[in-house]
Amino acid sequence: MLDDYRAIVGEKYLLTGEGAARWTTDATGKIKATPLAVARPADTAEVAALVTAANAAGQAIVPAGGLTGLTGATAAEGALVISLDRMNAIREIRQDARSAVVEAGVVLTRLHEAVEDRGLSFPLTFGARGSCMVGGFLSTNAGGSNVLRYGNTRDLVLGIEAVLPSGEVLDLMTGLHKNNSGYDLRHLMIGAEGTLGIITAAVLKLVPKPRAHATAMLAPRDLGAALKILNAVQEDSGGAVEACEYMPGDYVENYAQMHPEHGMPFDTPQPVNVLMELGSTVPRDSTPGPDGEVPLVARFEAILGRFFEEGLLLDAVVAQSEAQRRVMWARREAAAEVAGTRSPRVTNDVAVEVDRMDEFITRADAVLARVDPGAGRSIVAHLGDGNIHYTVWPGSDDPLEHDRMVEAIEDIVVDMRGSFSAEHGIGIYKLNSMARRKNPAALGAMRAIKAALDPKGIMNPGKMLP
Amino acid sequence: MLDDYRAIVGEKYLLTGEGAARWTTDATGKIKATPLAVARPADTAEVAALVTAANAAGQAIVPAGGLTGLTGATAAEGALVISLDRMNAIREIRQDARSAVVEAGVVLTRLHEAVEDRGLSFPLTFGARGSCMVGGFLSTNAGGSNVLRYGNTRDLVLGIEAVLPSGEVLDLMTGLHKNNSGYDLRHLMIGAEGTLGIITAAVLKLVPKPRAHATAMLAPRDLGAALKILNAVQEDSGGAVEACEYMPGDYVENYAQMHPEHGMPFDTPQPVNVLMELGSTVPRDSTPGPDGEVPLVARFEAILGRFFEEGLLLDAVVAQSEAQRRVMWARREAAAEVAGTRSPRVTNDVAVEVDRMDEFITRADAVLARVDPGAGRSIVAHLGDGNIHYTVWPGSDDPLEHDRMVEAIEDIVVDMRGSFSAEHGIGIYKLNSMARRKNPAALGAMRAIKAALDPKGIMNPGKMLP
Repeated sequence: MLDDYRAIVGEKYLLTGEGAARWTTDATGKIKATPLAVARPADTAEVAALVTAANAAGQAIVPAGGLTGLTGATAAEGALVISLDRMNAIREIRQDARSAVVEAGVVLTRLHEAVEDRGLSFPLTFGARGSCMVGGFLSTNAGGSNVLRYGNTRDLVLGIEAVLPSGEVLDLMTGLHKNNSGYDLRHLMIGAEGTLGIITAAVLKLVPKPRAHATAMLAPRDLGAALKILNAVQEDSGGAVEACEYMPGDYVENYAQMHPEHGMPFDTPQPVNVLMELGSTVPRDSTPGPDGEVPLVARFEAILGRFFEEGLLLDAVVAQSEAQRRVMWARREAAAEVAGTRSPRVTNDVAVEVDRMDEFITRADAVLARVDPGAGRSIVAHLGDGNIHYTVWPGSDDPLEHDRMVEAIEDIVVDMRGSFSAEHGIGIYKLNSMARRKNPAALGAMRAIKAALDPKGIMNPGKMLP
Repeated sequence: MLDDYRAIVGEKYLLTGEGAARWTTDATGKIKATPLAVARPADTAEVAALVTAANAAGQAIVPAGGLTGLTGATAAEGALVISLDRMNAIREIRQDARSAVVEAGVVLTRLHEAVEDRGLSFPLTFGARGSCMVGGFLSTNAGGSNVLRYGNTRDLVLGIEAVLPSGEVLDLMTGLHKNNSGYDLRHLMIGAEGTLGIITAAVLKLVPKPRAHATAMLAPRDLGAALKILNAVQEDSGGAVEACEYMPGDYVENYAQMHPEHGMPFDTPQPVNVLMELGSTVPRDSTPGPDGEVPLVARFEAILGRFFEEGLLLDAVVAQSEAQRRVMWARREAAAEVAGTRSPRVTNDVAVEVDRMDEFITRADAVLARVDPGAGRSIVAHLGDGNIHYTVWPGSDDPLEHDRMVEAIEDIVVDMRGSFSAEHGIGIYKLNSMARRKNPAALGAMRAIKAALDPKGIMNPGKMLP
């Protein structure tokens, strides 16, 4: 079989042994696997030929991009890895239509830079942006910090091209905003973690690049107050809020100990610390007046003023420079670093309705105190979209105890009609959760769809579907 | 079998003969069908019981709502119609979470009114809003005039509940903004026209209700200029444009003849007539100054000013009162009336990329002149989302000639990577187009999914899938 794959991509681009070392693990370092081989196709036709050959042989395939997933979805023991990294052309940026036609191997930051040169923005952003690739973040339906304003990955995709498990090319490469011609297979492929096919290209939505930002650290009275403030700022700013990130008091204290040069966000420590950022494309919002005042910042300050009067807001610091803004973001983006100060760690990437985040945290903290009184935890949350990263530092090293803790937290999530995997996906690490928590009819429908499109089960087997 | 269905919903709610007359046709009047019976279940459990019984008997089911579809998707010859009209509760409106929990039988205008009382808005709107129901507009993935700002129906849905062809209840009733736990079955059910199951309830996204509107008729030099103006107004207003609707010169002339009291939009007739509307939630945008000037309107006028200087805009009238605004909208919303002045009619609901609408119209007009030199046509288009309603008044009464015309227009659409059904869906009227134009791999995948979830083919058979 290797000869067949080699004939398709060429000697140089079929890697085995040492050449394939990079694909034996991923960014989490938790995977240890030995792929059969790694093929690096040059175009969609080569991907289709590889899949057709693998299908005929019943050979398992694992599609791979930047290897930055957090759930082990690219683990490839004995599989043919199809790496999309050579298919990295930005084929077209359509200025007036505000769309970009890209191949699956384009790295997110490269796309950011290419469109920003045109005064546009592809607003998806998150920690792995320097390595993750289009095919990967589409297959994961990645989230990040700007979901509040611009939606998840799937909301930014107009068209896709994918190679189905049969080897057929699903050509949905249209830049359309309206298209009601059949089942929405685009949304089915997005977030399917490569189990239904390999995304090879996409047409992405672009937005105008903000000319001005206004960024602040806020100390609302509690999370209920934070949501009221968010909604009001959103309304009074005409929907300019791009991010609204929650960090509890212990998080900012831990961070200040690691980075004393950045200090604490407020003179008096606060239990609720919120990073809120507005972005505006309005020209006058970015033109400082004779007093040097930036209008967007002044307006943000004026909006915040009334919440002090109402007692919803206890403290606020609005960034007066790009340097101050960067410190605020550095604090938030250090989430993995802060959580990494202790080990072992049990991560929980959950989502609940935005008006019930406080309830979730209260209940999770209570469960934690009961299940493992010696445990600690670290929280950051996307307040605008209900996504809570609730990392537990368990008192015990016993994996069974850890799973018991995950189950206890899932009990709360399920009771609250939340999600046990908000933005990271399922991969292999969340298969247990999927088996015990997913609505049975949904799981049945997923299995039926998988069997219908991939009857031999060659496409990223053992992932997502328990 | 009727006794089984009767036992489930009760004597009163199983209709046959005269009682079922309403369901023998739809709002287009083109359908003539005799259903086996019409069941009007009270809740999801009754829907599930009906579907389970029908499945056991191999009985075809047609789900029905407000019967306002335009493609014959509720035609029900010999079928058990399951009408969702009694399941019409607005279960909950969550103010801070900005979501509404609704049943499938809720009429769109009732939802509009209910949420507007709370200062919120459900921004989906189109002509049939007074009759269409949640289950129907979700199953059609309805579009309308505000897609530009708020997206299609699917972009406004957080969660759904549906009864699958097996009778199982697919419970995805969550109000989450992030949820990466498996295939997105929500998006698969939305727009499936009832062929994969019956949507029984949904969690919908709400947005803050605009406090002020600014509405204008614009005469851009051409459609390219119109898009540049739209993009610039969008940017300079911070994304406040809610609608951008195109009417060619002959359309506004026809309308003026029918409604002389409303007159023409401009003193000098213009070839390109665009209705543009901004909506703002910013408080100061709606507070008139001492001179009575509304800030949003003044700002809109200021933004438009520079396009005159650049030669992109030839004329503009900004509405100075609600009455003027209503006339502008009445002209646009009379599209069906204007198209209805001649018959027969061949409708084409197509979409192309937003920067290629002019190209489509030029090519379609040329084809029309060639295929049927005696034909006329009427156009309205959603300039912000690329959707063109291109209605032909053919010179001939021969249906074969009409189909030839549709094919000729589809040739252009397919060549431009457009959609042959932008917002109306497929139903039965577009089955031919689907068979000859849909990407073969996509059609194959759709058929496989349909067979997997509905092996007996009982759910709205003969619709969408050729």
